[in-house]
Formats: sequence, structure tokens, C-alpha cells
Amino acid sequence: MSDERLLCQLDFLLEADALKHVERRSWLLGEQRRENAAEHSWHVALLALVLAEHADEPVDAARVVAMMLVHDLVEIDAGDTFRYDDVGNRDREERERRAADRIFALLPSDQGGSLRALWDEFEAGESPEARFAAAIDRLMPLLQGHATHGRTWREHGITRDRVLERNRPIGAASKALWQAARARIEDAVKRGWLAEGDRD
Amino acid sequence: MSDERLLCQLDFLLEADALKHVERRSWLLGEQRRENAAEHSWHVALLALVLAEHADEPVDAARVVAMMLVHDLVEIDAGDTFRYDDVGNRDREERERRAADRIFALLPSDQGGSLRALWDEFEAGESPEARFAAAIDRLMPLLQGHATHGRTWREHGITRDRVLERNRPIGAASKALWQAARARIEDAVKRGWLAEGDRD
Repeated sequence: MSDERLLCQLDFLLEADALKHVERRSWLLGEQRRENAAEHSWHVALLALVLAEHADEPVDAARVVAMMLVHDLVEIDAGDTFRYDDVGNRDREERERRAADRIFALLPSDQGGSLRALWDEFEAGESPEARFAAAIDRLMPLLQGHATHGRTWREHGITRDRVLERNRPIGAASKALWQAARARIEDAVKRGWLAEGDRD
Repeated sequence: MSDERLLCQLDFLLEADALKHVERRSWLLGEQRRENAAEHSWHVALLALVLAEHADEPVDAARVVAMMLVHDLVEIDAGDTFRYDDVGNRDREERERRAADRIFALLPSDQGGSLRALWDEFEAGESPEARFAAAIDRLMPLLQGHATHGRTWREHGITRDRVLERNRPIGAASKALWQAARARIEDAVKRGWLAEGDRD
């Protein structure tokens, strides 16, 4: 194996350090500060490991874990786009695609190509692994929202209808996780942490 | 699958959030702040994915990734012990074992048992996967040390001899990674970021 190959890999891994500076909207459970995208990536990779058995279609848990490890790397360039922000989401895909072009190309081409393909698969959301990855990527902020008494929802005036709509991919991947998610949404409404929205 | 099983899993995953508050000695590359154990866990899991091909003995990369995801969970209770701190390391194993007893027991017993066994394997350091995991767990702080011009080493008066001693497990798992690690150690000495120590 050439030195050049390893040096490229180490450059990519040092570049990845920047994900620790990308702030998300979710609050940590103690509400001391918001979460960053690197610790979020670790947390959802742990979810993949622990919750894969709840996928309605069988999934390769190791592939879902790998997907979670790379799914937010594009945010190093593109930043975190709050998914309830309609304006920011208009050009999100284009910004993230350009970021993926740059970041995965830091790796040796065979390996960069494989990880880029895994990211593309996650974005396309069509394989069982990508559907399950999308589900846990939404489930964690929902659990955090409930555990922090709806802090992010209250800050941004998010209502139950929008939370249900945003989290529908959980239901597409796992009946069990969707049931648990809905129970927390309804509990948050009942406790006054999440506004009911227009329909009620 | 019972609701009870999923509720235990979600409790464990919410408990894991606390790892984001465990501060390590390593500085982020921009030196804005120190790293926490959750983002470190993500980073070394990414190293496992990218660098597994450099292991001298073949390793199951997915098992190394899983090991990295859980390897620091005990620090939720036991805190991070700076590995150059001889006093803190005296009772580290005992404190971490008690933490593992509590934390993995939050999961359903079959799953908690599997993840605990993975952590025990990491701690024992005897399988090819555990040896490679130990190597990348050391390699990342070394890369960070070099990239931040030796900030942590300078803060704690760590010399080259101690860095070489501490990082010897890299050499036990991968000749290629050890060569890259030694090159950065010698470069840091040359640039005055790491003191030479007694032998020179």
C-alpha cells in the first residue's frame, strides 16, 4: 500500500474534524448547549446498532451504521439546514451535492467512490438501509425534543402537524419506532410542549 | 417485539446523550475548545471505516466500528482519564468496570450482554479487532496533537519518550499506521512542539 494512499486518508480524516463545529438546532438533554453534527452522527450510529432489529424490512445494520457515520459530512461545507426551514431547504440538495463532490474526493478514488455511493444511497432514500437511516436520523431529534420539553419546537413555533409530517419516514421504515415516536408527540402536545396546530 | 424492550433501548440511547458532556484533553483542530467523548467516538469510528485496510492482521471493520461506538460509554460515569495521568489511571479500570455494569444493563439483557462483551473485548485488547481499535483510539489524539502544534503535550509537559510509549499499540496493530504516527512525532519534535525528553 502506498504512503500516498494513507496520506490522503489521513487528510480526509483531519478534514472531518470540522464537523464538530457544525451546530444543529437540537438541544442536548440538559439544555446546556445545542448539539453539533459530529456528536449527532455518533448518536444516530449508536441508534442504528441498537435499533436495527425494529426495521420492518431486514437491514444490514453495519451498512446503516456506516451510512450514519458519513451522512452529515457534507455539512462541513453546506452547514446544517434546519428541516423546518422552507427557504434554507430550497437549495440544500445542490449545496450538499457540491460539498460531497469535494469532501469524498479527498479520499483515494476507490474508497471515496464507495463512501460517496453510500451517501448518495442515503440521500435517495430508496433502499431498506437508507429508509431505516432516514428514520433514525429523525427519531433522535424527536426524542431530544420530548426530553427537553419541546425547546426547539417552542423556539421555532413548530406545531404537531409539522412534526408528524416531518417524521413520517419513521413510519415508512418501522411500525414499532413510529408507534414510540407518536406516543412522544402526543405526550408533548398533552403537556403543552408542542402546539396542536391548525387542524385541532 | 414487546414495547418494554424498545422502551429500555430508548432509555439507554437517551442516557448515552451524557457522553457529549465528557471533556477530553485533546483540542479540536482550530483550538477553539477541547473535544468531547461523543464526537471523539464518532471520529474514531470513521477512522475504523477508512483505515481498516491497514491492519496487519485482517479485521472485521464493522466490529471495530461498533467497538468504537461503545468504547467510551463508561466515561459517562467514570469521566475521561488522561492517559498520561498516572494517578488517575490507578483506579481507572475499577471505575470503568462499575460504569459498564450500570450502563450496559440499561439495555435488554441479550443486547446489553453483547455490547458489554464487545467493550470487554476492547478492554482486554487481545483480538485483532481490539488491537486495531486500540491503535486508532491512540492515532487520532496523536494526529490532533500534531495538527494543533502540540498543544496538549505542551500543556502537560509530555515528552517524546512518553508519546512513543503511549502509542506503541499502534505499532502492534499496523506497521503502516505506526510509520505515519512516528513521522508526525519526529516532525513535532523537530518543530519544537514536543520536547525530546530525557534520552536525548
